[in-house]
Amino acid sequence: MNFSPQEKETFYKLIAARRDVRSGFLADEIPKDVVEKVLQAAHQAPSVGFLQPWNFILISSSETKQKVKKAFLKANKTEAELFSGQRKELYENLKLEGIMEAPLNICVTCDTTKDSSNQLGRSAQENMDVYSTVCAIQNMWLAARVEGVGMGWVSIVHQQEIRTSLKIPENHKIIAYLCLGYVNEFKENPELETKGWNERLELKDLIKYEHWN
Amino acid sequence: MNFSPQEKETFYKLIAARRDVRSGFLADEIPKDVVEKVLQAAHQAPSVGFLQPWNFILISSSETKQKVKKAFLKANKTEAELFSGQRKELYENLKLEGIMEAPLNICVTCDTTKDSSNQLGRSAQENMDVYSTVCAIQNMWLAARVEGVGMGWVSIVHQQEIRTSLKIPENHKIIAYLCLGYVNEFKENPELETKGWNERLELKDLIKYEHWN
Repeated sequence: MNFSPQEKETFYKLIAARRDVRSGFLADEIPKDVVEKVLQAAHQAPSVGFLQPWNFILISSSETKQKVKKAFLKANKTEAELFSGQRKELYENLKLEGIMEAPLNICVTCDTTKDSSNQLGRSAQENMDVYSTVCAIQNMWLAARVEGVGMGWVSIVHQQEIRTSLKIPENHKIIAYLCLGYVNEFKENPELETKGWNERLELKDLIKYEHWN
Repeated sequence: MNFSPQEKETFYKLIAARRDVRSGFLADEIPKDVVEKVLQAAHQAPSVGFLQPWNFILISSSETKQKVKKAFLKANKTEAELFSGQRKELYENLKLEGIMEAPLNICVTCDTTKDSSNQLGRSAQENMDVYSTVCAIQNMWLAARVEGVGMGWVSIVHQQEIRTSLKIPENHKIIAYLCLGYVNEFKENPELETKGWNERLELKDLIKYEHWN
């Protein structure tokens, strides 16, 4: 199965148009079949030993979201203290999550005890099941974008609080807490770039040949 | 920027057609502009704090590949000992890497000390820079597939041996060692599925609502 020049172009357009969305979520519910497509894309990610170690918790109740939002606010306050002066001011003006506004939140976990006799591909590098799960999340991000759904990854929250709120068993590692919803627009560039938090690096400066030096 | 029904279809076709490729690599060199496209896709991945913490080491010398292959063989032998009976026989008959045959190997690293004053998004979850790098790798996988290039992730190798062979500084975490090359065919299903190593799970069994139970 080959891809035509036009199909390649579609793919690169998508890669460039994907954004980490934290604001502008619309209240419209995401139809079930669209959510299903996004999760099916995740489920087709590569996984070490074909483990498929992921689970997806779909959250739409305000009560649960409120708990996570509270945990975010706490971690956000602590994180803000790491910065000072103009940088702190900029940090405090960034919108870093859309927990309450996004109609759908999804927590993605990785079962670290799954199929424990199947150590294929992870006896030398034990994090491979976690990495498989992150690959699944990137598939979700792209699938959401192609559907016009914005997705944001909320990492400013302590995992123990998510674990307690969602009653996640200890053997399941929390990998991501995601916010999803339709948006009116996807920004042309990452917000952290346009607002001057950090600069886009040149790819050529990140490539090495044969070995590090 | 919206995606048409046909463009969506292209994306889902790609998601389904991507494979972890370990055999069937052709010797043909991958043109520079194609390698560049794959790396540009990686570089457009989301990154915490817009860190872009990744580096890419492009390896084509047989001498270097040979060192990594040797490290693979050692780890592969140790891993095989974890299985017994029919399972061990099946393991030993799996082709788990294409280090020597693939014309291009790429080692992807994550700079864990990059921009250390920029802790946005990772003061509560410290692995976020690593996860960003894995997102970049999934972008590479899809970009390679759209270009007709097979890519495989070799995780049966101890990272210290890669570090030594490629002279990677201690502050850069090794995330993946990848093999890339054109292939005659992409298998319809994952090899670990068709060879009976593991079964495809039902997505519906992996979804939970509101909380774990």
